[in-house]
Amino acid sequence: MKVGNQHFRTIWLGSDQRTVNVIDQRKLPFEFALKELRTVEDTASAIQEMVVRGAGLIGATAGFGMLLAALEAEPMDRQKFLEHVRQAGDVLIGTRPTAINLAWAVERQVAAMSGVKKSDQMVEKAAEIAQAIADEDAEACRQIGLHGVSLIREICRRKRGERVNVLTHCNAGWLAFVDFGSATAPIYAAFDEGIPVHVWVDETRPRNQGARLTAWELGQQGVPHTVIVDSAGGHLMQHGQVDIVITGTDRTTFTGDVANKIGTYLKALAAKDNNVPFYVALPSSTFDWDHEDGMKSTPIEERSSEEVNLISGRLPDGQLAEVATLPFGTPAKNYGFDVTPARLVTGLITERGICQANAASITELFPDQSPHGA
Amino acid sequence: MKVGNQHFRTIWLGSDQRTVNVIDQRKLPFEFALKELRTVEDTASAIQEMVVRGAGLIGATAGFGMLLAALEAEPMDRQKFLEHVRQAGDVLIGTRPTAINLAWAVERQVAAMSGVKKSDQMVEKAAEIAQAIADEDAEACRQIGLHGVSLIREICRRKRGERVNVLTHCNAGWLAFVDFGSATAPIYAAFDEGIPVHVWVDETRPRNQGARLTAWELGQQGVPHTVIVDSAGGHLMQHGQVDIVITGTDRTTFTGDVANKIGTYLKALAAKDNNVPFYVALPSSTFDWDHEDGMKSTPIEERSSEEVNLISGRLPDGQLAEVATLPFGTPAKNYGFDVTPARLVTGLITERGICQANAASITELFPDQSPHGA
Repeated sequence: MKVGNQHFRTIWLGSDQRTVNVIDQRKLPFEFALKELRTVEDTASAIQEMVVRGAGLIGATAGFGMLLAALEAEPMDRQKFLEHVRQAGDVLIGTRPTAINLAWAVERQVAAMSGVKKSDQMVEKAAEIAQAIADEDAEACRQIGLHGVSLIREICRRKRGERVNVLTHCNAGWLAFVDFGSATAPIYAAFDEGIPVHVWVDETRPRNQGARLTAWELGQQGVPHTVIVDSAGGHLMQHGQVDIVITGTDRTTFTGDVANKIGTYLKALAAKDNNVPFYVALPSSTFDWDHEDGMKSTPIEERSSEEVNLISGRLPDGQLAEVATLPFGTPAKNYGFDVTPARLVTGLITERGICQANAASITELFPDQSPHGA
Repeated sequence: MKVGNQHFRTIWLGSDQRTVNVIDQRKLPFEFALKELRTVEDTASAIQEMVVRGAGLIGATAGFGMLLAALEAEPMDRQKFLEHVRQAGDVLIGTRPTAINLAWAVERQVAAMSGVKKSDQMVEKAAEIAQAIADEDAEACRQIGLHGVSLIREICRRKRGERVNVLTHCNAGWLAFVDFGSATAPIYAAFDEGIPVHVWVDETRPRNQGARLTAWELGQQGVPHTVIVDSAGGHLMQHGQVDIVITGTDRTTFTGDVANKIGTYLKALAAKDNNVPFYVALPSSTFDWDHEDGMKSTPIEERSSEEVNLISGRLPDGQLAEVATLPFGTPAKNYGFDVTPARLVTGLITERGICQANAASITELFPDQSPHGA
């Protein structure tokens, strides 16, 4: 998508074929800075410290991280090589427990490299798969946009051309993927079609991904938007100010339970209470085919309480700073995600089309997958 | 309540009988500073700028503000005197549209002064009523505590003495009243009884009254508590970590619709979805006897979008500062309150006891009131 007037992806391999370039998302919207990842360790800490974040981008970063692991393992014999990349994969998977794209990308890389007989072709395979994961992510998001825009188009028709108000939580924008985004893809597609669309952006405490990232990327593309505190969405829905909710997800079971940024569940409840359609956009790489009860099976990451206490922003003189908001010594808890049960989800927007949030509808769209729920 | 080891109320008349002392709540928890109000203008701007805030305290401040109006009007003849205090009352009422205690206190003062025949006795009457409003507020909150503690005691009995987890939103603590608080009064009463109680404190964006004020006052009294972002309550309720929700209210219709800090409605939805009892604590001065549909009748204050953008706190060196969190030029909206429909409210805790959130139950407890709904 556009930054200024230049096209960017969130991640790409440098011309040396051994440096991974990413946008340092901790610095947005105040500074647009790139960061180079040269080792598995670099990659793991970039994911852990949220230099990169978001379902698809975490997967793509893990894919490239496995290429870096392969480069590190290059001189070893086949068995040691595979041992090294498997260990690197475990390190990467350990960084963010809720994000399923992470394990998905690592396992795909391990399987691909294991299938290569000659160890001098393994790096080449890892490079091919890393690029494929990134390209497929971008293409899946583009397709999500093409399918999802039909929902916005229909609302606009029903409102006789009046502005369509979309509410989104956190950042499931292009910054969370390789390009286009999941929740934002239908919005960008609608905007490109000339549909009058406006986005309510939940600021998304504690890390303010909505205020910092979604507002910034919508601004760069010129899409009208307004930031609200996370508590405001219910009031807006009660007063007819939200036509549709679209969020992303970090893991969705094949039965339709949606793990996403903490607070998503509250918006889904409010949408249900006010008959506002609640959609979740995801590439199929985000499906969890192994578990049928999202509430019981999804590991919920608990992050540092300092993320609740410390808020970063610009001082009046333009300098960046972090302020502590709590009384000295106040305990805080910081759960990263919650699970929205399938009964509250109107539908899922995937790269293959829109389906209902239940096993029958999901597996009908993805017959090539074999759910084995537990 | 205690600050350090000293007892404080949130508002009191100085020994000169013409200076109103308040705690400057904008500076908490970083600094405990007092502020003197000497004029109606001082009083109006203290309410407007949230030096003082909270249902009961706004009412008490308006009561004392009307005393300051009477002092200003003292040399005038009876008719001009009343004209002056009525005008002052209009100014005060205009500062915060949602808070019903404001109009209630102003009208009580105007009625009392209007009933005085001799203009040289009017100031005395205003002083008497201002003090009565403050004293009655404190006593009502104390009674709310005595009634409400029965709910916490019963949960503790059912849990065989295990910790009782209360979730609260915003600050309906003693800082929001003259003493004790509404939502916090049952908590303080439980704590004093030795019941193991723990409070989940919603940080309450955008002004962080939970993080700044509720956490501070619970800390001063020694009550165990943990701050969470506003989005976390649903997740906690899904996982059995909340036994009861108790909030305050800025206006509750005699039919039980509850206007309170933005986001209260989302917590009520989550409580309903997880069978967690949802109680609202209020002195009867917060009832709106004139309207039966809270959603249609309650004016929702819209405050400056800068409150969403700017967050204040301590820099690493201890200095206080305000940081801007949004990309330059990003629009934001800032609705101060939402309305929780009566159907989501388990009960109301008042100074006369606990009742259901419906007209029959409320008017049974307050037969001396005459609702005239519209």
